[in-house]
Amino acid sequence: MDDARIAVETGVDGVDVVIGTSQMLREHSHGKDMTYIKNTAIEVIEFVKSKGIEIRFSSEDSFRSDLVDLLSLYSAVDKVGVNRVGIADTVGCASPRQVYDLVRTLRGVVSCDIECHFHNDSGCAIANAYCALEAGATHIDTSVLGIGERNGITPLGGLMARMIVADRDYVKNKYKLEKLKEIEDLVAELVEVNIPFNNYITGFCAFTHKAGIHAKAILNNPSTYEIINPADFGMSRYVHFASRLTGWNAIKSRADQLGLSMTDAQLKQVTTKIKALADVRPIAIDDADSIIRTFHFNLQAKVEKPLLPNMTEEEKVKFEKAERELAGEKEKRELDEIVDEQADVPKAKKTKTEVAA
Amino acid sequence: MDDARIAVETGVDGVDVVIGTSQMLREHSHGKDMTYIKNTAIEVIEFVKSKGIEIRFSSEDSFRSDLVDLLSLYSAVDKVGVNRVGIADTVGCASPRQVYDLVRTLRGVVSCDIECHFHNDSGCAIANAYCALEAGATHIDTSVLGIGERNGITPLGGLMARMIVADRDYVKNKYKLEKLKEIEDLVAELVEVNIPFNNYITGFCAFTHKAGIHAKAILNNPSTYEIINPADFGMSRYVHFASRLTGWNAIKSRADQLGLSMTDAQLKQVTTKIKALADVRPIAIDDADSIIRTFHFNLQAKVEKPLLPNMTEEEKVKFEKAERELAGEKEKRELDEIVDEQADVPKAKKTKTEVAA
Repeated sequence: MDDARIAVETGVDGVDVVIGTSQMLREHSHGKDMTYIKNTAIEVIEFVKSKGIEIRFSSEDSFRSDLVDLLSLYSAVDKVGVNRVGIADTVGCASPRQVYDLVRTLRGVVSCDIECHFHNDSGCAIANAYCALEAGATHIDTSVLGIGERNGITPLGGLMARMIVADRDYVKNKYKLEKLKEIEDLVAELVEVNIPFNNYITGFCAFTHKAGIHAKAILNNPSTYEIINPADFGMSRYVHFASRLTGWNAIKSRADQLGLSMTDAQLKQVTTKIKALADVRPIAIDDADSIIRTFHFNLQAKVEKPLLPNMTEEEKVKFEKAERELAGEKEKRELDEIVDEQADVPKAKKTKTEVAA
Repeated sequence: MDDARIAVETGVDGVDVVIGTSQMLREHSHGKDMTYIKNTAIEVIEFVKSKGIEIRFSSEDSFRSDLVDLLSLYSAVDKVGVNRVGIADTVGCASPRQVYDLVRTLRGVVSCDIECHFHNDSGCAIANAYCALEAGATHIDTSVLGIGERNGITPLGGLMARMIVADRDYVKNKYKLEKLKEIEDLVAELVEVNIPFNNYITGFCAFTHKAGIHAKAILNNPSTYEIINPADFGMSRYVHFASRLTGWNAIKSRADQLGLSMTDAQLKQVTTKIKALADVRPIAIDDADSIIRTFHFNLQAKVEKPLLPNMTEEEKVKFEKAERELAGEKEKRELDEIVDEQADVPKAKKTKTEVAA
């Protein structure tokens, strides 16, 4: 109550009242019982409200709290006019259906706004936030890259990814999505972490397609294997050409983009060369471009230019070996068929072989 | 069918049959209609079964497929004795309650095993896997670190985190959890990615506690803010001492562990020094230990030893300035009370002030 008085005196617009309600936190963190919590909460809320200031009341560790205790507490603070109640999965134990059920029940008990806070210890922070919204929550706590205690809370970018799949127009109109990458880069730099390789939307893998069957369909129509349009976030798609998994469909599309006309046989040939070179050195997308260009140039030229600059003798031997191996594979089966086998679906035991139905 | 024949001839234990069933994939990937898919699937399954070999049938892009088409197809393959059917959220669009409903419905239609495959584009790959298990799925596809097309599939470690929260004994008895870190390190090294800072269980933040209110309760009883016991995975907890957020409760516990007896006033004093030093240089946990030890030594010694070795003149000035600032803060409010305010719950507008109820 003293704290509330000090807070109000500072001239703030709102006050946030918070306390752990699980038996665990009541015992080991603050030592207060539910009657004390309820009475103090009402006293503080009535005081803050009397000063014309917005007030929010939240439990902590809500999902390990007694349901009846929790609902009785929220109902009491709602009756004295709290602006918003908060639910917090402080330890990250809640599962999506549990969240949906609790928020749905709470939605029937209080008329004020409902805010939710989810930790990601068991990997459900985004899913839980989404289920809370489905059940009638009005506010979700997020942070940039999900940074928070332990492995963090609902990440802003991940929740955007989830929400844009559900309602693209709403999300695009409400948020400046193209700023996401910028703010993530800024925060990552300040707190000295790397953006995870598999980060939602902005991670370097998010819109990368590598397996042949995927690359082929993506080039045909991106919606086949993409539920989020990278352009909505100012990002671009990257179909991975430069590896042994590359299919000639991807190379064909790239050659078209580069304005280089070649026959299918020539395209398959340069695909094999790129695969072989990718075994010699890591090949970036611009390396692949220059290989395609050089290969195309060599088709008409009298003097053959090397596909990769400055190859050592050792690298040349490695390349020729890889090329021979790939030629062997080709004899067994047409390359594009091999590529079509790489279906992106459940894998059974390792001893099994996939076939197209 | 030719592929199935070749597969059987190789002497495999099982065959995996896969095809895209959404309109999107039927149109832009393989161009086959549902009647063709069903008839071919039955033909292949009957052939493979006749050879006494296990067979699995999976749709691709199941969550964008027509429900009636899907159930009719699965029912047909179940009737001819398929061992397992697979559901794949190939594009990562499925939400947890949608997964639960589909798998629950499918569970009533087929008697064979049900395998599920989830992509993480919208952040629900772990939650969806868990909901599928709740609904009666028998198998979940995972990969180490979730590595797969785009930002990946259900990560093994994340699913373990989710499952151990639900049934610790079952998970501990079934899996060699202490191997998780080793296999993740191995794979990360091979594919040349960093383990994300916020990775489930093994990320460097997973069991790190920094905010004072958390650190205090964790030292009192780890279950207050930890739903997963790091020791189950051969990991250890790290209570972050060395920063301006550090509470004296954490330092007190550490001093106890180090066998150094000090009064509360002395502990608060060394806490302030550690906070000030953390502003001068990044302080690791072993630095904090040596500061506590030196401070304790200085209490009884005639000659005062420096708390940090080799401080430059510039660093000394910075330290004294930080110490003065912290002393100012202390006058306003007792340090442990400041620390108790850092509750880990929803934050409202920035202009608001949190108070303990």
